[in-house]
Amino acid sequence: MTQARYYHAGCPVCVEAERTLIGLLDPKVKVEIVHLGDVPARVAEAESAGVKSVPALVVDGQVLHLNFGAAIADLK
Amino acid sequence: MTQARYYHAGCPVCVEAERTLIGLLDPKVKVEIVHLGDVPARVAEAESAGVKSVPALVVDGQVLHLNFGAAIADLK
Repeated sequence: MTQARYYHAGCPVCVEAERTLIGLLDPKVKVEIVHLGDVPARVAEAESAGVKSVPALVVDGQVLHLNFGAAIADLK
Repeated sequence: MTQARYYHAGCPVCVEAERTLIGLLDPKVKVEIVHLGDVPARVAEAESAGVKSVPALVVDGQVLHLNFGAAIADLK
């Protein structure tokens, strides 16, 4: 099973990308959805994973930045 | 069955994103991989689908720009 994290900030771009992407994923991929607006304490975690903007999907140490909703710096 | 198109240009960012993303997708999602460097005639098709940079995944009229490899304008 693959564990992925989808970081977002509730922005329209984030919601749209989530709707598009999550439905395409293999059901075996377990995705934790992290709303950084709700849990700002995890911004540092996202940043250290390499997330520079949201929405972003982190999996196996790789970061996929999806479109552009907001810079991570703007969430601090 | 969902039909998706992955547009790329063979760049390192494109290859990396493809490796990360494609393996996560539901096996029911059929992905056509389009290397715009090899088929420049399809740049216009990508552009009219809303692709502004590669790599990008187009599905159901939605575009997911993944990281940033190259601007579509640079592929013309």
